[in-house]
Amino acid sequence: MAKQPVLTPQADDFPRWYQDVVAKAEMADNGPVRGTMVIRPYGYSIWEQMQAEVDRRIKRAGAKNAYFPLFIPEQYLKREAEHVEGFSPELAVVTVAGGKELEEPVVVRPTSETVIGEFMAKWTQSYRDLPLLLNQWANVVRWELRPRVFLRTSEFLWQEGHTAHVDEADARAYAVRILHEVYESFMRDVLAIPVVVGRKTAKERFAGATNTMTTEAMMGDGKALQMGTSHELGQNFAKAFDIQYLDAEGTQQHAWTTSWGVSTRMVGGLIMCHGDDSGLRIPPVLAPVQVVVMAVRDDDAVIDRCRALADELTDAGVRVELDVRVETSMGRRATDWELKGVPVRLELGPRDLAENVVTLVRRIGGGKEPVSLDGIAATVGSALDAAQAALLAEATERRDSRTVDVTTIAEAAAAAATGWARIPWADLGVEGEAELAKESVTVRCLVMPDGSLPDGDAADGALAIVARSY
Amino acid sequence: MAKQPVLTPQADDFPRWYQDVVAKAEMADNGPVRGTMVIRPYGYSIWEQMQAEVDRRIKRAGAKNAYFPLFIPEQYLKREAEHVEGFSPELAVVTVAGGKELEEPVVVRPTSETVIGEFMAKWTQSYRDLPLLLNQWANVVRWELRPRVFLRTSEFLWQEGHTAHVDEADARAYAVRILHEVYESFMRDVLAIPVVVGRKTAKERFAGATNTMTTEAMMGDGKALQMGTSHELGQNFAKAFDIQYLDAEGTQQHAWTTSWGVSTRMVGGLIMCHGDDSGLRIPPVLAPVQVVVMAVRDDDAVIDRCRALADELTDAGVRVELDVRVETSMGRRATDWELKGVPVRLELGPRDLAENVVTLVRRIGGGKEPVSLDGIAATVGSALDAAQAALLAEATERRDSRTVDVTTIAEAAAAAATGWARIPWADLGVEGEAELAKESVTVRCLVMPDGSLPDGDAADGALAIVARSY
Repeated sequence: MAKQPVLTPQADDFPRWYQDVVAKAEMADNGPVRGTMVIRPYGYSIWEQMQAEVDRRIKRAGAKNAYFPLFIPEQYLKREAEHVEGFSPELAVVTVAGGKELEEPVVVRPTSETVIGEFMAKWTQSYRDLPLLLNQWANVVRWELRPRVFLRTSEFLWQEGHTAHVDEADARAYAVRILHEVYESFMRDVLAIPVVVGRKTAKERFAGATNTMTTEAMMGDGKALQMGTSHELGQNFAKAFDIQYLDAEGTQQHAWTTSWGVSTRMVGGLIMCHGDDSGLRIPPVLAPVQVVVMAVRDDDAVIDRCRALADELTDAGVRVELDVRVETSMGRRATDWELKGVPVRLELGPRDLAENVVTLVRRIGGGKEPVSLDGIAATVGSALDAAQAALLAEATERRDSRTVDVTTIAEAAAAAATGWARIPWADLGVEGEAELAKESVTVRCLVMPDGSLPDGDAADGALAIVARSY
Repeated sequence: MAKQPVLTPQADDFPRWYQDVVAKAEMADNGPVRGTMVIRPYGYSIWEQMQAEVDRRIKRAGAKNAYFPLFIPEQYLKREAEHVEGFSPELAVVTVAGGKELEEPVVVRPTSETVIGEFMAKWTQSYRDLPLLLNQWANVVRWELRPRVFLRTSEFLWQEGHTAHVDEADARAYAVRILHEVYESFMRDVLAIPVVVGRKTAKERFAGATNTMTTEAMMGDGKALQMGTSHELGQNFAKAFDIQYLDAEGTQQHAWTTSWGVSTRMVGGLIMCHGDDSGLRIPPVLAPVQVVVMAVRDDDAVIDRCRALADELTDAGVRVELDVRVETSMGRRATDWELKGVPVRLELGPRDLAENVVTLVRRIGGGKEPVSLDGIAATVGSALDAAQAALLAEATERRDSRTVDVTTIAEAAAAAATGWARIPWADLGVEGEAELAKESVTVRCLVMPDGSLPDGDAADGALAIVARSY
């Protein structure tokens, strides 16, 4: 019996496949207000895992969590000229509250550099108070005209780090540290997404930054997704909000600040990087459910053994779900778990039980084989490790094979139809960048030939990665 | 040398003491928009501990986390008459977004029964989909005219649980389960706050509920604070949002829903229940920092031993902070840790090191004694256990000794000047309740003489707990 596809095949229509999988894996729904989303329990459990892993790394880098208000006085945004220009078109504004027209409208935060700058100024007196390393987990609002769930929503969840330092070198070092030790490490080792780490061009820079650094991932259709950014803000916000400190010589100095963030957009990136025509494929290190133990039949001995098996794996530190919905067909249940991308299924029936085996089904890499119930935790552990490595290898292979070196703008535009192009920045330049933009192809970032970060907008030998993007 | 008080003494001015301790323990600041707050890193670390403990209990009760939008169409709120009437005066309304006047204004969620109701209706087809047990951690906005940090803020952080059930009995059982297994247990066993669990009168009920149950705590000044509530919503929201299911007999039925929440207000309750004239006192089970290891002198051997001691305690599962700020006086450092309410200080100097001891200082219960460095983890563990028990005992003793039994309204009002009064509901009634309200005394809840929950607004023998409140 030929299997009816549950999703639009990726090759037919990738955006439609994305919508299908978001809906059928019960990840999210569109909210009632245009551009907002409802993150359903399964989608949220993935976000919670992301939060836990990113939060651990942020704390290890020395930043402390805090919480700043959702509402920001409109005049705060106006204090930094580029910042207000960048964000004004996207703001949601509260004009009525407590039954009255407000004297000064307040904006719903699109990001918190301004309000956090105000408090950094209060909390910073001397160089001994620096570096001041803060982070918050929050919702932000940027009104979207072309929303797409997880990728581009009017409200999204994120963390935003904000730090203040005594000098430019310390600020830069910290922004780079976050980029590598928090973001790149998390994306590669947890999400199994081999991001390219680079510097944004002046055109693509965050509004108010002196330097924006980024992590860019290639999706299944060859497009790019900006997964997270880390900004040097120079003294722009320090001057606008008067973040000053007394240095060791007793002189007042303006601090140097940074900001950096990743958001629920990463959930969209995870789906589009690893998903296939059967649904999601969640890397085991991230997966809220790493293994599902399924009872094949409504048989007490089978169900009891499944429970014991689930307990054994839980005790071994595996995140397990037990599926004893024996009234539903195995085919339907297997399809559901494939859609949800659970890395390993263990299917147990009466015959397996008699032979002391269980059928291990791999979502990643494929394959279905009976394995002994003795030492099952180790067997499962190996399967999970292999799946994690396979996803990263597959994504790396795709990224590398679909990135081509070119030297002309026409070649770059052509390559961006199916993947990424790499072109010397000296051959592209600001004008070439503008030309590509007309065809919706953008410079995702600048990188040095050895993979390191260029130290300026026009670093000698820098390469531009150009692509279409989400 | 007489110690200069760092805080306004509680006996002089309790509200002023509260403001002082919030500021000096670096818990929070007022935000720039009226009624909002900035939760500083130390305050936020306490909230994170609360979240972790409550979240674990919620998950154990079977509810799953999800996330619903901040913005709710104005018309959603209007669908449930009491609900809109209750919340209208407190709403913040977005009328402009993306540079344009919105056709339909959207409200910033004051609570999410309405938008979650809309999605429960989509996700519920048959009785097999029920119970549907959801929770979200989010910020909400209720415009406050008389804001007070943590206790009453225009924006606050909370969890809101929302569930749908096949019948009234199941809904009630779950709302009661959350009240006891999540809230009461967390407050007693983690916060060391012996809450009274009761039923709200009709006057104090949540807007749209058929029954509101509450956990009420006595603060250090004898006033009451509502710490958390759990509501039966009957079929009010199910009818307004069409949450229907097909029952086992094939008939369409409306579901029965509940909602329940606790918020950052609990941080205020923690401060006011346990704080003293030296600052906060954080129960060890909750404390983000349970023990601070302090080097008394700038001496390499001392500092090395402090580091080793901190590592040893960390390995034993204790949450430790190392304080080697030897350039600052011990007095100032000790005062800081007292303000922050860290349960145990371990002070190590050269003489201690020579004698293989460390000075253990108890924030709770008091006392300062040399203890052997051998077996220090066990010694510290006992001190923390004793502190946890002592805080609960002290708060219980205060609650019980300052609650008096009365039979007249005049006596109840008089008792509420310094504590709580307990009066038979039959002697008070709706009219007595209205009378007390004129003197800012409210019925905090109704309880049965044996401490159980009354099963209706006029349960035979029910007692009313009346008090002034925050």
